[in-house]
Amino acid sequence: MDKFTRNQRISIITKTLIENPNKVINLNTFTELFSAAKSTISEDLYVIKDILSRLKLGGVETISGAAGGVKYVCGLSEEKSMEFANRLCGILADKDRVIPGNFLYVTDIMCNPQIISTAGIILASKFIGNNVDYVVTVETKGIPLAYEVAKLLGVQLVVVRRDTKITEGSTLSINYVSGSTGRIQSMTLSKKSLKKGSNCVFIDDFMKAGGTAKGIIDLLREFECQLVGIGVLIDTVSTQKKLIKEYVSIVNFNGFDEDGNAVLMPTKDFI
Amino acid sequence: MDKFTRNQRISIITKTLIENPNKVINLNTFTELFSAAKSTISEDLYVIKDILSRLKLGGVETISGAAGGVKYVCGLSEEKSMEFANRLCGILADKDRVIPGNFLYVTDIMCNPQIISTAGIILASKFIGNNVDYVVTVETKGIPLAYEVAKLLGVQLVVVRRDTKITEGSTLSINYVSGSTGRIQSMTLSKKSLKKGSNCVFIDDFMKAGGTAKGIIDLLREFECQLVGIGVLIDTVSTQKKLIKEYVSIVNFNGFDEDGNAVLMPTKDFI
Repeated sequence: MDKFTRNQRISIITKTLIENPNKVINLNTFTELFSAAKSTISEDLYVIKDILSRLKLGGVETISGAAGGVKYVCGLSEEKSMEFANRLCGILADKDRVIPGNFLYVTDIMCNPQIISTAGIILASKFIGNNVDYVVTVETKGIPLAYEVAKLLGVQLVVVRRDTKITEGSTLSINYVSGSTGRIQSMTLSKKSLKKGSNCVFIDDFMKAGGTAKGIIDLLREFECQLVGIGVLIDTVSTQKKLIKEYVSIVNFNGFDEDGNAVLMPTKDFI
Repeated sequence: MDKFTRNQRISIITKTLIENPNKVINLNTFTELFSAAKSTISEDLYVIKDILSRLKLGGVETISGAAGGVKYVCGLSEEKSMEFANRLCGILADKDRVIPGNFLYVTDIMCNPQIISTAGIILASKFIGNNVDYVVTVETKGIPLAYEVAKLLGVQLVVVRRDTKITEGSTLSINYVSGSTGRIQSMTLSKKSLKKGSNCVFIDDFMKAGGTAKGIIDLLREFECQLVGIGVLIDTVSTQKKLIKEYVSIVNFNGFDEDGNAVLMPTKDFI
């Protein structure tokens, strides 16, 4: 039987935890893999837990009982979160991002794994205690961010579509009024998507007036599910009347100044 | 100054590498973080590299020169890849997945982070040597898988849209013929999305006749970019005439048998 040193075990245990966020891993997984005693693995885990907490890079939680084990919970220090939000403001302020109609081009950012994975950690850590069952988003731009948050919360992602597709089976559709344009839009979701009574978090790229979020609440109600949190990358603060009051954002976008520069800053108290 | 033990350093270095796949990390990042000598960090890295390679869980590569450092390259053992493909066939064979029109419902699978992250590792490891600049997909179902592959290859994701959006700025559109339905469809992509002369990998949920993949090749040609690989989760082998010959898939879907059961098996030689 192969022997493993503590260093080797710690590297593999760290990798396994990081790759399975918020999922309880039974200690037997490690005792069997390494042919090691439970007490040995517990000592390894203590080292990992201790250093992650010291560097504020997330935590390791122990769950007792028959279905017990350990799980990794993502996290980022206040300092690193603020550094990220400031860097993001800098990237978003690039003049080339202003497109006709006074929109901010963010497609590349929403598809940049390095940015989205950090944003995902910041948003997921807000909802970690909410017993979340699903992360919900509306196609298309918010999908990578919503996927990251779902992965970090250890739950399924649900993508609401704009129209019905034959590959979705029976669907449920609702109409809602877009808060910023006032137009009626529809959203549709496969009947198979959500279990009754589930807790859902809504993740999107932008929060403007909140019409989409309100639509999501209505849609979830049809599935007898509750919305327990909303997280967006960018909050458009220049939109006066918000249909939704409570949500988390990382960056505030306050329109354009007289020279046509986007006015951006980290959201107050987002950490 | 805080001191760190080898165990602690190995845990944090492992986490940093895993969270930044295929990205070169300069050794100074670690020597500064731990106030340790380069030789010490090199020894730490040797332990990580050695155990990952022994358990076939990916690799650590050293890049020399001024811009040098180390990077983590994802990987999964043949045994685990086959185990995953077999498990996926079992999940897909569920009778509840058959929807009117003889389609297989896969939306939940394409949005399941645990499944998609493993599928992402299998597909990304096929393209790791291809100098990939972008991972491209077409909205909507393939986005999470394409995002995972992009993240694991350390590159940007690009999502081709079905129609033009005002938030995309100037776009380039093409029409193409769907290989399975024969209908004319269009795809559109923001002009800002791709740099000339880039190498792209196309990732999607299904490969039927290959019409979408052919459309992607045409679209990339308009951007003066090359397609260097195609990866899908499921290959519909019952579609006789394929417009595309070379691609990687994990599972073969061979239609339904007389009792209406989906016929599925791991793709031959996919490992």
